[in-house]
Amino acid sequence: MIKAGIVGGSGLTGRELIKIFAKHGKVKIMYVTSLEYPGVEVTKIFPELAGKIQGAFADASKADIYKGIDVAFLCLPHAAAMEFVAKFAEKKIKVIDLSADFRIKDAESYKAWYNKEHEHKDLLKQAVYGLPEFYRKDIKKTKILANPGCYPTSILLGVIPALKNLEVQSIIVDSKSSVSGAGITPAPGNHYLYVNENVTPYKVGRKHRHLAEVEDVIYREFTGKPDIIFTPQVVPMQSGILSCIYMKLKTWQDADSVKKMYADFYKNEPFVRMTDAANVHNVQGTNFCEIYVDGVKESNTLIVITTIDNLVKGASGQAVQNMNIMFGIDEKEGLQ
Amino acid sequence: MIKAGIVGGSGLTGRELIKIFAKHGKVKIMYVTSLEYPGVEVTKIFPELAGKIQGAFADASKADIYKGIDVAFLCLPHAAAMEFVAKFAEKKIKVIDLSADFRIKDAESYKAWYNKEHEHKDLLKQAVYGLPEFYRKDIKKTKILANPGCYPTSILLGVIPALKNLEVQSIIVDSKSSVSGAGITPAPGNHYLYVNENVTPYKVGRKHRHLAEVEDVIYREFTGKPDIIFTPQVVPMQSGILSCIYMKLKTWQDADSVKKMYADFYKNEPFVRMTDAANVHNVQGTNFCEIYVDGVKESNTLIVITTIDNLVKGASGQAVQNMNIMFGIDEKEGLQ
Amino acid sequence: MIKAGIVGGSGLTGRELIKIFAKHGKVKIMYVTSLEYPGVEVTKIFPELAGKIQGAFADASKADIYKGIDVAFLCLPHAAAMEFVAKFAEKKIKVIDLSADFRIKDAESYKAWYNKEHEHKDLLKQAVYGLPEFYRKDIKKTKILANPGCYPTSILLGVIPALKNLEVQSIIVDSKSSVSGAGITPAPGNHYLYVNENVTPYKVGRKHRHLAEVEDVIYREFTGKPDIIFTPQVVPMQSGILSCIYMKLKTWQDADSVKKMYADFYKNEPFVRMTDAANVHNVQGTNFCEIYVDGVKESNTLIVITTIDNLVKGASGQAVQNMNIMFGIDEKEGLQ
Amino acid sequence: MIKAGIVGGSGLTGRELIKIFAKHGKVKIMYVTSLEYPGVEVTKIFPELAGKIQGAFADASKADIYKGIDVAFLCLPHAAAMEFVAKFAEKKIKVIDLSADFRIKDAESYKAWYNKEHEHKDLLKQAVYGLPEFYRKDIKKTKILANPGCYPTSILLGVIPALKNLEVQSIIVDSKSSVSGAGITPAPGNHYLYVNENVTPYKVGRKHRHLAEVEDVIYREFTGKPDIIFTPQVVPMQSGILSCIYMKLKTWQDADSVKKMYADFYKNEPFVRMTDAANVHNVQGTNFCEIYVDGVKESNTLIVITTIDNLVKGASGQAVQNMNIMFGIDEKEGLQ
Repeated sequence: MIKAGIVGGSGLTGRELIKIFAKHGKVKIMYVTSLEYPGVEVTKIFPELAGKIQGAFADASKADIYKGIDVAFLCLPHAAAMEFVAKFAEKKIKVIDLSADFRIKDAESYKAWYNKEHEHKDLLKQAVYGLPEFYRKDIKKTKILANPGCYPTSILLGVIPALKNLEVQSIIVDSKSSVSGAGITPAPGNHYLYVNENVTPYKVGRKHRHLAEVEDVIYREFTGKPDIIFTPQVVPMQSGILSCIYMKLKTWQDADSVKKMYADFYKNEPFVRMTDAANVHNVQGTNFCEIYVDGVKESNTLIVITTIDNLVKGASGQAVQNMNIMFGIDEKEGLQ
Repeated sequence: MIKAGIVGGSGLTGRELIKIFAKHGKVKIMYVTSLEYPGVEVTKIFPELAGKIQGAFADASKADIYKGIDVAFLCLPHAAAMEFVAKFAEKKIKVIDLSADFRIKDAESYKAWYNKEHEHKDLLKQAVYGLPEFYRKDIKKTKILANPGCYPTSILLGVIPALKNLEVQSIIVDSKSSVSGAGITPAPGNHYLYVNENVTPYKVGRKHRHLAEVEDVIYREFTGKPDIIFTPQVVPMQSGILSCIYMKLKTWQDADSVKKMYADFYKNEPFVRMTDAANVHNVQGTNFCEIYVDGVKESNTLIVITTIDNLVKGASGQAVQNMNIMFGIDEKEGLQ
Repeated sequence: MIKAGIVGGSGLTGRELIKIFAKHGKVKIMYVTSLEYPGVEVTKIFPELAGKIQGAFADASKADIYKGIDVAFLCLPHAAAMEFVAKFAEKKIKVIDLSADFRIKDAESYKAWYNKEHEHKDLLKQAVYGLPEFYRKDIKKTKILANPGCYPTSILLGVIPALKNLEVQSIIVDSKSSVSGAGITPAPGNHYLYVNENVTPYKVGRKHRHLAEVEDVIYREFTGKPDIIFTPQVVPMQSGILSCIYMKLKTWQDADSVKKMYADFYKNEPFVRMTDAANVHNVQGTNFCEIYVDGVKESNTLIVITTIDNLVKGASGQAVQNMNIMFGIDEKEGLQ
Repeated sequence: MIKAGIVGGSGLTGRELIKIFAKHGKVKIMYVTSLEYPGVEVTKIFPELAGKIQGAFADASKADIYKGIDVAFLCLPHAAAMEFVAKFAEKKIKVIDLSADFRIKDAESYKAWYNKEHEHKDLLKQAVYGLPEFYRKDIKKTKILANPGCYPTSILLGVIPALKNLEVQSIIVDSKSSVSGAGITPAPGNHYLYVNENVTPYKVGRKHRHLAEVEDVIYREFTGKPDIIFTPQVVPMQSGILSCIYMKLKTWQDADSVKKMYADFYKNEPFVRMTDAANVHNVQGTNFCEIYVDGVKESNTLIVITTIDNLVKGASGQAVQNMNIMFGIDEKEGLQ
């Protein structure tokens, strides 16, 4: 059994990890820490986990979280995760960081977007961006795994095949996310009366931090430097993201052949599948990313629509998929 | 008092008209016909109209719907409205057609999109496309008013100021609509279990008929012929449309100056207002269109987000606004 | 014009009052105070009020709120309202208190339920409980109006005709309320992720303060002292309450005759109507209370189902109805 | 492996069975028939089942559905199931009938409520009502399993411990159900625009067929014949039922001791658990029934609130639980 610790597990990604591990045949949760609820029964905070976990949240400041575990999952806010990653790395313990702290290789970009000097630039090189469909080989070997953000997962899986095979001039992403993307802490923006019967765009254009992460991958891995525009929006849903991606091509490619190209690209992927009718229902509660491909010849524009569950493939599910790869076990374990 | 008839009034647009007329000081409803419910009390079908209307739906095939009215509102399916428009026109009665039959001046385009030969091409020239913000002068004089579609209203109000003042190369519209856009008849696509917790794109790219209407206006009125892409989507809401419009410009224009230009363009409009934070709540149940303007310099792209209530400014509210203009009364009557 | 002040108007009941006054031909809002947002434009906090009000929230501690007004509406928390009521009373200004402070005549009961000694017991006698259908005569004459709670309105309108005309032994009320009943302040219980796809009973049995208010009226006005059980529940809705009321009768009464008795009781009421199919849609956004009557002979039990909009008939709409009565103007003004 | 056939599997209970069997280690689905979609890929109708089932719906009229299976699940409408049950029984194949046809032992009651003469009265005696918590011993031995309705499951689990141990005089059940209870076929009552932002009571008092099933069990198994009132209601949810049950007792019992009695009664049950805060979230997607116990001394009334997922414990989950018992395997298999 793989012995896992969860640091900062009283939020939505921690809850999702516990749910997944309850179905995972090869993981034992050694502890779940919480800053807000140390000593409180986990099922008191998450009654829906009854039968899936026993015991109370631990206090990370008192427990020895570096002892007796094979892997740590960090469900911490950005900036707070950094030092924990460094300590786990120092102790040679594999660490899967669900924060943004090690996603961006370019420390200047990190500083610009997160308004904080990166304190472990040396480790940035060791960290691997945990998108299995693109970095599986590196994931197998790393001890520091930077788990991708929810929007970036939905975007990158939608653009990478095109970037690899076509000349993409510009990218416009129009994403619709569920409320769970904004976390569990009560705020005006997640009040039922605000979210319900509403659609709310925010950080329109080039203002959302996840753009940094997307560009870091795209500009490092591909030539061409397409411009990117990104409009995130909240819609009344519990979970799920649907991203419409419009890619202007230099030369037109028949949509059917592009669709085939995408299908080929992902044909061996356990968690990516093509669809003829995109909608969020098909992926909610699963680790799947569904991809719809269409296009408009008149304007040389490819339209790719991706859907994921933001808490699963967009966070904890992908984290477990990465762990499975890092430990050389069946990549699908716990995720079906 | 203006004597009004409503033909085909047992659907959502008919219901909305009745609601508006209950607040309108200068209109008397003479009849509301219904194919499905002739002889049935209106409030039996729409209990929420209690106190707003009395009497039963009339049978259009028996009643003399051409007698004793000053204006007819047609809430009929496409193709079915055509002959009624012709008859009202023949009788010199003003007619406001909420169907698509007279929205597209180009009869070939109508045929291509609606799969039907237009039977009254001569009247197409007399019909005025009822977007008051652009065609108010013509609306004042016409007897045949083609009331715009819901998506086209949300798109045209968002692009016209740019098309008038800037060089727009291409337009991508990503619209999120409420369920009411699809009408009241039960179907798999409006079943609660399908709509709830979902986002559903449909007719992606260039497949939706409303595109014909948008292009008919844009290509007739403006030079430049920008390419247009349009992705309609259904989100879990009762009413409202939010359209994100991405316009690629030939030369960059500072977003603030564009915003000012939009504000100027609409400064005397009673039902268009600028916003710094687009969301659907602000316009639900009103005849307003709210407009948010932003832009991305790096890619010369203007981002305009519009919101309307699809049943009000996107249908019956705009129909009444048009009627007010056609009869020379206060344009805001009944709509505040 | 009646000059009205709104004290504590940056919550949901304040917003609703402003909406109603925008349609009210005889009221001028002189000020709206707010503890949280003094000096902030009202439409900045409530963008949906654009066109309905101008200016900023006032600071009650600085402005002379006792000057130049004919009536004050208090939208304050319980206990906080008390002293304001006393001061307005002292200045001979009519005051409509939307808090619970003057609803319960029995000061001991108030203390027991609200955990606070009532500081103006003398005024309790002058205050009138603002349920127009039962206390209209007293409302006409009072200067202190205690506006009923949302649940109590939905309950009392459902039980009073039976209590007047039949022998009721016990009452069980099972109420389903929208989220707006809990106010606008973010809290775990109104987070979208908690409310959506859920039903949450709370304060089951005899734990909710509104019970005190219901019993205060019932036990004061009627003989028989039926036991009352009350289970409030939150369901995923923006507005509305539906209360199922089960009344055990001493002797069976045919449901049809009881229905007729209810219809007679309310036949002159402008805002109560009978229905054959209770549902919340029919009353949302209106000041109506709809009443459905049924019964089960086998167990001598009358079943009455009432629906109201909790923010309108259950709060601000009823407050305006009361104001209309207090000022001798058309009771329906602003409410249609 | 247990070889299972699903007859009439293109509805919600069929879909849920397929989902459960995908997690069940000991069942192989041999066929899924459908009247509407014979020959159509199952995942075409239910895209969310991708990866969980392969192949097309079979045509029950052509395939030999009586061959090669150990157990048949009937997901058919009432009355239609009857003859299939008889044929499977004749062939000595275990059959689990999710319709109401064999739930009611009293053929007269069946006829009265379902408006149809029961054609296999002889088999009624062999059929066992599949509520494992009460009939587990009989379930082990039967070949004909009548799977309980959703409301009856939520009611019976809430009243049986009280009926066994206390003198209950009358029962009032106020149930709130999700939309999925009404099935997948589009109808005015499950249109998004009707369900959303609404609560709809229907068949108030003693009009719902599920009452017959509840009374059949209660009056057969317990003395005292308490009167029963039942008000079903639809609230805007995908899945789940919450039933508030008010039981008038002959003599008061302290709520805490009753709670303990319930906890004892269910202490060995794998799918019933007590809760201190009833809400639907805790059981959605699970086979659990949660039970909350409270009471009001003043009126000798016990209040029990139960929650289940109507498609799982209220239908397909309980059907699999019953199958597990019938085949002597772990009762929890596939249900965790």
